[in-house]
Amino acid sequence: MLLSTHRLSRLRPGLWSCLFAALAGLALDPAAAAGLSPRETILAQARPAEWQTLDPRQLLYMQLPAGEVIIALAPAVSPLHVANIQTLVHQRYFDGLAIVRVQDNFVAQWDDPEADDGGDPHKTHPLGAAKTRIAPEFTRAIAGDDHWTSLPDGDLFAPTVGFLDGFPAARDPLTGREWLVHCYGMVGVGRDVAPDSGNGSALYAVIGQPPRRLDHNLAVVGRVISGIEYLSSLPRGTGPMGFYPQAGQRTPIRSIRLGSELPAAQQGIWQQLRTDSPSFARLLDDQRYHRSDFYPQPPGRVELCGAELPVRHLQLHATSVTEPSSP
Amino acid sequence: MLLSTHRLSRLRPGLWSCLFAALAGLALDPAAAAGLSPRETILAQARPAEWQTLDPRQLLYMQLPAGEVIIALAPAVSPLHVANIQTLVHQRYFDGLAIVRVQDNFVAQWDDPEADDGGDPHKTHPLGAAKTRIAPEFTRAIAGDDHWTSLPDGDLFAPTVGFLDGFPAARDPLTGREWLVHCYGMVGVGRDVAPDSGNGSALYAVIGQPPRRLDHNLAVVGRVISGIEYLSSLPRGTGPMGFYPQAGQRTPIRSIRLGSELPAAQQGIWQQLRTDSPSFARLLDDQRYHRSDFYPQPPGRVELCGAELPVRHLQLHATSVTEPSSP
Repeated sequence: MLLSTHRLSRLRPGLWSCLFAALAGLALDPAAAAGLSPRETILAQARPAEWQTLDPRQLLYMQLPAGEVIIALAPAVSPLHVANIQTLVHQRYFDGLAIVRVQDNFVAQWDDPEADDGGDPHKTHPLGAAKTRIAPEFTRAIAGDDHWTSLPDGDLFAPTVGFLDGFPAARDPLTGREWLVHCYGMVGVGRDVAPDSGNGSALYAVIGQPPRRLDHNLAVVGRVISGIEYLSSLPRGTGPMGFYPQAGQRTPIRSIRLGSELPAAQQGIWQQLRTDSPSFARLLDDQRYHRSDFYPQPPGRVELCGAELPVRHLQLHATSVTEPSSP
Repeated sequence: MLLSTHRLSRLRPGLWSCLFAALAGLALDPAAAAGLSPRETILAQARPAEWQTLDPRQLLYMQLPAGEVIIALAPAVSPLHVANIQTLVHQRYFDGLAIVRVQDNFVAQWDDPEADDGGDPHKTHPLGAAKTRIAPEFTRAIAGDDHWTSLPDGDLFAPTVGFLDGFPAARDPLTGREWLVHCYGMVGVGRDVAPDSGNGSALYAVIGQPPRRLDHNLAVVGRVISGIEYLSSLPRGTGPMGFYPQAGQRTPIRSIRLGSELPAAQQGIWQQLRTDSPSFARLLDDQRYHRSDFYPQPPGRVELCGAELPVRHLQLHATSVTEPSSP
C-alpha cells in the first residue's frame, strides 16, 4: 500500500479484518479474524491438492554473490531449448560466467563475457555436448486444453491469453499457435539475428514492464520463481543496451545447478498454485474486484502479466527417530 | 536486442542500414546510411518546434548518493498536490530524508523515515507552510482536447487512453473523468487510508510492471525523465511491502531542488517530444509496425505504458565573446 505505515500500524487488526470481511462479503472466519487479507486467506485455505509440486529437474538454481535465483523451466513450447539448457547446466557451462547486461525497464542478461568482449565465443566455455544451433521454438501448435487455463479478461496483443502449465501464455486461434508471454520475471533465450542461433547459452530475465514485442520472436523457457530481486536490483550497465563496458562491473555467476542435482534435504519442495484450481480462480477475482478502504475503485480486470502466480517453499524437516519401546 | 553482441558487432553498419531501409520502406537518406535505426532517424529528423521545453519550475532534481533523479511534475490533474510538493521543496523538507521502501516489481518510496519508525510524523521535518491534508485529486473532469493526444490502440482498464500534457493518461467518457496512469517511472503521492491524507511529503515511483490498480486511487504528480535507474536498482527492502527494517539500509536523499532554483547554466534545458507532433506519431507507428530481421513479427499495437516518451537534454555552452574589430 502506498501509505505512511505509521498510520497503518495504529489500526487494530480486528478492525481491518472486519472491514475486509464486510466489504468482500466473506464470512468472518478465523483467518480473517486473524487480520489476514482476502488474498492471504485464500492462500491459507487452499487445499494441498491445489498446489502443484515443481519437478526438480525443471528447476534452475543460480548462485549469485548476493543470493540465489530460482528459475522454473517451461519445456512445453521450447523443449529442445530447455533440454539444451539442462545439458549446459550438467556440463557446468554457466559456472564462472557473468551477468553481462542489465538494461533498465527491460532485461538482465547472462552469458559468456568473452563472447561479448569480441573474443572467440565458447572458447573458454565450450558448449561440449550441447547444441550450437537449434531450430526456432518461438511458438508451437495449440496442443489442446489439458494444460491450459484461459484468462477471459482480454489482452491488447493476443486474441486469447491464459496459462500454459502455469506459465503466462497466449494463443491465436486463427494461426493455431500458442506461445509463452514475456511477463515480469520470465526467462528467454538470447540469440543473434538468425532465428536458430539461440541455444540457451545466453539467457535473459525480464526486469521491467512486459516487453510484449518480444513475444513469439524469441524462445521463452521459464520464469524466475524466487530471487528475481538479485537480478532486478543490479546496477544498470552504462554501455549500449545496458551492457557493462568493463569486465569488473559484471556480477559473476558462481554456479547454476538443476534441482535434481542438489540434495533433496537442502532444496526442499517448491510448489505453485494450480491455475485450474478454485483457489486460483478466487485469487483472480480478488485482484479484479476487491474493494478496500485503501483502494475504493478496483480495476475490474486482471491483465495476464499482472496475475499473481503464487509459489510456496516447503522445507523438509528431519523427524526424530522414535525410541523403541522398552521390552 | 536479445542477442550475443559479438555477432552484432561483426555486421557492417552499411548492411544494417540497407536492411532497415529496405524493410521499412524508407528512402535511403543520410541518417539511415549512417546506420541509424528508424527510431533514431525519426528523432534526429524531428523539427525543433516538435520538442516541448519543460518548465524548470515543474522539474524536481533529487540528489542521491549514486546520482541524480529528475522528475517532471504534472500539475494538470493534481494541481494542489503539485503546488504542495513545490512548497515542501522550497522549504527543503526532503533534504535529509531517505528512500524508505523499495518493493520489487512495484515501487520505490521516499518520505520521513522517522514517521515509518513509529515516531512522531513530521516532528524532525515539519511541513511548515505546506498543507497537511489536501482534498483528493485522483481524477479531474475531462478538460477538453487542447492538451490531449489520443492513443487509439485500446487499453484493458480504461475506455480511452492517451497523453495529457505529455503524460500517460486515461479517460472515461461515461463518468466524464480523466486521470494519469501508473506507467513505469510515474510518480505518485503516498497516503494513508483517508483519501485526503496524501500531501506530497511521501512520494513513490513505479519501478516494475505498471500497477494499474493504483489508477484513480492515488494522485499521480509526475514522471521520472532521467535517472530512474538510481531508484530501480536499489536493494529491495526485506521488511513487509519492501520497507527497510534497519535505518542504515535506507538510501539517503541529499536534496531535492526545483529546476527554477538551480543555475540555468548548470541544468541546461530539458525537452520532450510533443505527443501531438508528426514525429511522435511516426515513432508510435515504428513501435507498432516496424519489421526487422531480429523482430520479424511486430506487435501491431503499442500499449499506453509501452509508448516511448522521448526527452532530450540541451546543455548550454558559453559562447566566446567576439573581439571588437580593430579601429
